[in-house]
Amino acid sequence: MSDDAATDSETPEDAEALAERVRDGELRLHELEDHADADTAATARRLLVETQSGADLGTVGDYAFPAAEADSAIENMVGTVQVPLGVAGPVRIHGAALDGERYLPLATTEGALLASVNRGCSVLNDAGGSAARVTKSGMTRAPVFRVADVAEAEALVSWVRDNEGALAEAAEETTNHGELLDVTPYVVGNSVYLRFRYDTKDAMGMNMATIATRAAADVVEAETEASLVALSGNLCSDKKPAAVNAVEGRGRSVTADVTIPQETVEERLHTTPEAIAEVNTRKNLVGSAKAASLGFNAHVANVVAAMFLATGQDAAQVVEGANAITTMEVVDGGLYASVSLASLEVGTVGGGTKLPTQNEGLSVLGVAGGGDPAGSNADALAEAVAVGSLAGELSLLSALASRHLSSAHEDLGR
Amino acid sequence: MSDDAATDSETPEDAEALAERVRDGELRLHELEDHADADTAATARRLLVETQSGADLGTVGDYAFPAAEADSAIENMVGTVQVPLGVAGPVRIHGAALDGERYLPLATTEGALLASVNRGCSVLNDAGGSAARVTKSGMTRAPVFRVADVAEAEALVSWVRDNEGALAEAAEETTNHGELLDVTPYVVGNSVYLRFRYDTKDAMGMNMATIATRAAADVVEAETEASLVALSGNLCSDKKPAAVNAVEGRGRSVTADVTIPQETVEERLHTTPEAIAEVNTRKNLVGSAKAASLGFNAHVANVVAAMFLATGQDAAQVVEGANAITTMEVVDGGLYASVSLASLEVGTVGGGTKLPTQNEGLSVLGVAGGGDPAGSNADALAEAVAVGSLAGELSLLSALASRHLSSAHEDLGR
Amino acid sequence: MSDDAATDSETPEDAEALAERVRDGELRLHELEDHADADTAATARRLLVETQSGADLGTVGDYAFPAAEADSAIENMVGTVQVPLGVAGPVRIHGAALDGERYLPLATTEGALLASVNRGCSVLNDAGGSAARVTKSGMTRAPVFRVADVAEAEALVSWVRDNEGALAEAAEETTNHGELLDVTPYVVGNSVYLRFRYDTKDAMGMNMATIATRAAADVVEAETEASLVALSGNLCSDKKPAAVNAVEGRGRSVTADVTIPQETVEERLHTTPEAIAEVNTRKNLVGSAKAASLGFNAHVANVVAAMFLATGQDAAQVVEGANAITTMEVVDGGLYASVSLASLEVGTVGGGTKLPTQNEGLSVLGVAGGGDPAGSNADALAEAVAVGSLAGELSLLSALASRHLSSAHEDLGR
Amino acid sequence: MSDDAATDSETPEDAEALAERVRDGELRLHELEDHADADTAATARRLLVETQSGADLGTVGDYAFPAAEADSAIENMVGTVQVPLGVAGPVRIHGAALDGERYLPLATTEGALLASVNRGCSVLNDAGGSAARVTKSGMTRAPVFRVADVAEAEALVSWVRDNEGALAEAAEETTNHGELLDVTPYVVGNSVYLRFRYDTKDAMGMNMATIATRAAADVVEAETEASLVALSGNLCSDKKPAAVNAVEGRGRSVTADVTIPQETVEERLHTTPEAIAEVNTRKNLVGSAKAASLGFNAHVANVVAAMFLATGQDAAQVVEGANAITTMEVVDGGLYASVSLASLEVGTVGGGTKLPTQNEGLSVLGVAGGGDPAGSNADALAEAVAVGSLAGELSLLSALASRHLSSAHEDLGR
Repeated sequence: MSDDAATDSETPEDAEALAERVRDGELRLHELEDHADADTAATARRLLVETQSGADLGTVGDYAFPAAEADSAIENMVGTVQVPLGVAGPVRIHGAALDGERYLPLATTEGALLASVNRGCSVLNDAGGSAARVTKSGMTRAPVFRVADVAEAEALVSWVRDNEGALAEAAEETTNHGELLDVTPYVVGNSVYLRFRYDTKDAMGMNMATIATRAAADVVEAETEASLVALSGNLCSDKKPAAVNAVEGRGRSVTADVTIPQETVEERLHTTPEAIAEVNTRKNLVGSAKAASLGFNAHVANVVAAMFLATGQDAAQVVEGANAITTMEVVDGGLYASVSLASLEVGTVGGGTKLPTQNEGLSVLGVAGGGDPAGSNADALAEAVAVGSLAGELSLLSALASRHLSSAHEDLGR
Repeated sequence: MSDDAATDSETPEDAEALAERVRDGELRLHELEDHADADTAATARRLLVETQSGADLGTVGDYAFPAAEADSAIENMVGTVQVPLGVAGPVRIHGAALDGERYLPLATTEGALLASVNRGCSVLNDAGGSAARVTKSGMTRAPVFRVADVAEAEALVSWVRDNEGALAEAAEETTNHGELLDVTPYVVGNSVYLRFRYDTKDAMGMNMATIATRAAADVVEAETEASLVALSGNLCSDKKPAAVNAVEGRGRSVTADVTIPQETVEERLHTTPEAIAEVNTRKNLVGSAKAASLGFNAHVANVVAAMFLATGQDAAQVVEGANAITTMEVVDGGLYASVSLASLEVGTVGGGTKLPTQNEGLSVLGVAGGGDPAGSNADALAEAVAVGSLAGELSLLSALASRHLSSAHEDLGR
Repeated sequence: MSDDAATDSETPEDAEALAERVRDGELRLHELEDHADADTAATARRLLVETQSGADLGTVGDYAFPAAEADSAIENMVGTVQVPLGVAGPVRIHGAALDGERYLPLATTEGALLASVNRGCSVLNDAGGSAARVTKSGMTRAPVFRVADVAEAEALVSWVRDNEGALAEAAEETTNHGELLDVTPYVVGNSVYLRFRYDTKDAMGMNMATIATRAAADVVEAETEASLVALSGNLCSDKKPAAVNAVEGRGRSVTADVTIPQETVEERLHTTPEAIAEVNTRKNLVGSAKAASLGFNAHVANVVAAMFLATGQDAAQVVEGANAITTMEVVDGGLYASVSLASLEVGTVGGGTKLPTQNEGLSVLGVAGGGDPAGSNADALAEAVAVGSLAGELSLLSALASRHLSSAHEDLGR
Repeated sequence: MSDDAATDSETPEDAEALAERVRDGELRLHELEDHADADTAATARRLLVETQSGADLGTVGDYAFPAAEADSAIENMVGTVQVPLGVAGPVRIHGAALDGERYLPLATTEGALLASVNRGCSVLNDAGGSAARVTKSGMTRAPVFRVADVAEAEALVSWVRDNEGALAEAAEETTNHGELLDVTPYVVGNSVYLRFRYDTKDAMGMNMATIATRAAADVVEAETEASLVALSGNLCSDKKPAAVNAVEGRGRSVTADVTIPQETVEERLHTTPEAIAEVNTRKNLVGSAKAASLGFNAHVANVVAAMFLATGQDAAQVVEGANAITTMEVVDGGLYASVSLASLEVGTVGGGTKLPTQNEGLSVLGVAGGGDPAGSNADALAEAVAVGSLAGELSLLSALASRHLSSAHEDLGR
């Protein structure tokens, strides 16, 4: 722990004593917070882990905020992992929720990524900035129910279609902000999946959706013959590479685009609109088609991952963030470029957004906390990620067009 | 910046002066390291970003190691994002490369995740530990070439089949450790994709594969009519949710499994083998089938993301890490459980593994740096991630079987 | 042509004279019907093809109905291909639209298929028959429009949501029976896809949907800035193996199921519920998962293809018919078995259903022509195909369980 | 039955008597061939089905060849379904196995299809003909084995890699022509799938592969701890829309392509290379991407289905035939167009190819029976289907570009 976070209650002795009690079997590893403040507990755990593994956890223990601030984000805390954070831009964004110049915060360990996005931002600016729009929105949760047979399955589907109001009422009682948008049933034999879709405003919304759906599932069980098997039946689909998300969306469906004059392409990207379009078609469209991919892009996941880490999003949801299609098209006198992310799950309240460094990342974009109107901050974050993704695609595709990929890596020393 | 990293050369004045020169247009944001040490440059950037955005970057700037140590991991650095790190276990692993008890390091902002994995580890231990094996291995890079027509495409395919030795020679000249395993051609019209697969030992290997493939591509261009369009043609497929990875593997294909006695299931997981197997079938198998998913699991991506962050892996490769199939089966007197990750891309040298906190994460597992024999540390890391994933699946599936998902979240205060 | 279909107007001389005029360049191959009756034209074409290729088209020319009856089904007709037709059953079907015993007509060239389905039907009867239900219905067509940029794309999406009534009015003016159910927009860069879904009653509905959508697309073009690029934008998705159909359905989503007593499984299928369930899990669920498949079944396409051919359906739509999930589950005292076909595109009026032999195939099921109420005959056909598929799955899976697959083929002499 | 096929032994009385014995429960429906010739048996079944269903099976019974010739193709035969057969072309094909002008036989009930392909063939001819090449070949069968755990799975994988020779020996003993090309293992928990790939020459090869694999599976069971669960484990993958086929191929991977001068496009297709390329990109590439499809084409399945029916291929394998990618690209002075079918399963011997009308269909192409060298006839058939598909794609895409899709249908009276 760093000096900033130090408190009087923590001394190595306290932590050593705690560790000893764990070794003696008196306490269990996750019970330490019941006997000491969070920083002491973390120190004790480091001692135990260091002894067991021989590792030195010096930098892990040198963190920048009181461990107690992470108590809803992790259990069994030993410290933090520090991921280098940089900024690209500022870039001009013409969004519906975010209109202005912004530095894009990116946390990554992949050398050259930030330089690549930065170059893309610069080209976007030269073209007057990038537009962005959220075109669909909604967080989903899909419980699976068991029924007796297909006759009962069909009856359940009919019942759901007739009782969406009752389900909405039950679901919305559990939340101040959430709103049930619709429920879509899917039948496979004697399993029925109900995909609930919610407007969760500025929250990413997975927990809100889960809690609301549990209430709705109680109604289904009370009113029909169906029996709940699991609150998530994988039609949601959370943190899996699933076509249902790529096709129908989850979280925000968001697109960024730009038209770049030919001279800008030539002078700044050292290639031509035609060459970039060809690379995009052969690699991102045809290559991904042949790979049977849900991701028709070059490296959108890099930008999504880096901006997710920088702003406290759920790193595992990079999976759905990769469901993106990049298009590059020669138009009159230039290049039309777009990136459409089908299922970008972002929030500006709750979860990791409350952590100090992550909250600062959101502040760099001016989107920390709830928006006005509700939901507008998360929309703005989605637009920023889309623009960052577009910058990254432009940069990498033009580099490929110039056959510079690996030399760029070499020059940057990796 | 923390005290540990402070150097005499950095004073607020220096940073302020640098920032001023950027504001005056004398310097560009990415040129600061040419005029000051890395920490001063980062401080100057924070000043600039704070002014532009109104954000306070106090905790971002309070990092635990000299910025210069991150110079190959990021550009335009302003500080670090700190992700809470915890440990689960220790858990008994019976792997081919990793045999012993290990704490599993997980960095996450998702409350309840670590507790869930920890519970799973405890159950694995009660069952005598988890086995794990890498069943396939190889990092891929697939350039796309343009040919005149299908006749030339067919000729190129034949040429490649006859000249794999020459390609291997060229590729392997670029690397001390890497070894070309095979080259698979794919034809779509006048585009030909050559998927090169390498043994990259303890490195994740993406850069090694890229550099080696560039050399091989030079040979292709010199010896045939084909023209290189892009060094990556998306058949690789890197950081995209692609079936080619789910089917054929990329990085390590690794499985962890265990057989748990019925009493252990009942006493520790408060459910039955039958109930868990039913949840797995209806959710992970049938539900994922109906979602047209490449991920037939509950939340493997959570564990992959958390262990990737903790050990300096590439966060964007969580995408491929989610290509996992979980099976749960009632066997004589108990539950057989397995998780098979098709495309887990891990390394213990290079990239983010060199960063101080991340390297400590690897040390917790005892796998930092190159292994003996070469490749064994990365294998061991893969086995550890697989066991962590199995722990997470067991815990969540049994919680679902007990209808505890959202109440667990509520109890943990999210 | 057979004697039944012979007409006075046809003599070899007439046909030879026609053929001569084609050879002389006076007529083109597709213009023959302008100069002779359909049978003579077909005879003339056979002469031409026989001369060019050396083939003998004797049996091709020996068809059972006047060629004129096929004039809306084919151009450049030379005769017919004759596919052996058999019947399985009769099988007891408990559907919503079809309740009773039916012989199932199957046209195939795959030896052992009919015997296999027949065995399955017999087992279904022993279990009291099979239930079946259509759980979703709607034929889709999805034109793609070009817009200027994402701002205009978002505006189009909003316009569509606000003007579904106007689109329905335009669409429904083109049809006596069709009804527009809903329109779902999808945005990728400057392309917007609108997936129109219709109730087309007893027609398979592809043409009805196309014509209606063209009218609606005219409204879109008139009222917005969007420009139609193609009336089908592949989000439909017709005759392609696409997840959008597997997830959301196209045509009928239909399930058949049954619970078979344990004794019946043992005596009739010579295996156990447990063994069948295991084969289904390892092959149809886990195997298909690993293959990154949209088809989680053993050979549903065989039955779909054979019943499609027998009843005049579109053979190319077997592609979507294969999007089926089979489940097999041990239940109290027996085996629960189901097949759910997500996207079965069937009709009992129009297209190939009007041809004499195909219409007789529909009559075997009692579903030729329009149903009362409208749509009920196509529903009944869907239920029959689902039951046939279930019979086929049961038979093959139990044969695999008994390791009889290839010996069955050998015994039947293939 | 037609006169050609009549035999003295068949009189209505005989058939009626047989039918009566079935009604009395003396005989079962599939036993009739044991008591009468095949035609009489079919007649008796028609009587039974007509009585049960009220259908008139007059045209079904009016078939063109002795029923006995279909005895290896079907059981419980009642007659034939007659599918209208037409020809397109002749078209100039520059293949490796097929070089010359050919009429393409297509059997379909979809009005306008043949006219469309014919128009495409005409344009191909104007451009000098279409090239075609098989770029990969091999029929697969993938049994699934159960092992104890992942340690045993890994051991089995190693064993297979070390013993491919022994497996080949066992497999090839069962066949005169087949050759084992390779075996690829896939591990999911305690299930191991071995994908055997064979060169089956002119046979489609499914049965050959099944029988050979059974022999190899016996060796696996004898030499290792593994236990065979099913001879097909769905990694094959037969008659399912699976990415493993789209990526790796099954049967023949075949491409046809052409470059069409700009004037030809304008004069014959009434549109421009640019317009066709735009339709292809927005529909076949981007639209299919958004649909999460394995088929990036317009209507390849139509041509595959029609040529499969015309030449006695397995209609259910149209499913894999739809795994095709169409590219359209503006090149100097014209349009480059290609269709690549990843998994076209064709044969010219065995199965339905022996039936009289189907064999005549093969003769139209000049590919009936075994080729010289072995395999060349099936290669030629694959090339012909690819060229037909290209003709169909060109025609439909240019029609879409001209907004003629539904009007074409209307004009042709459907």
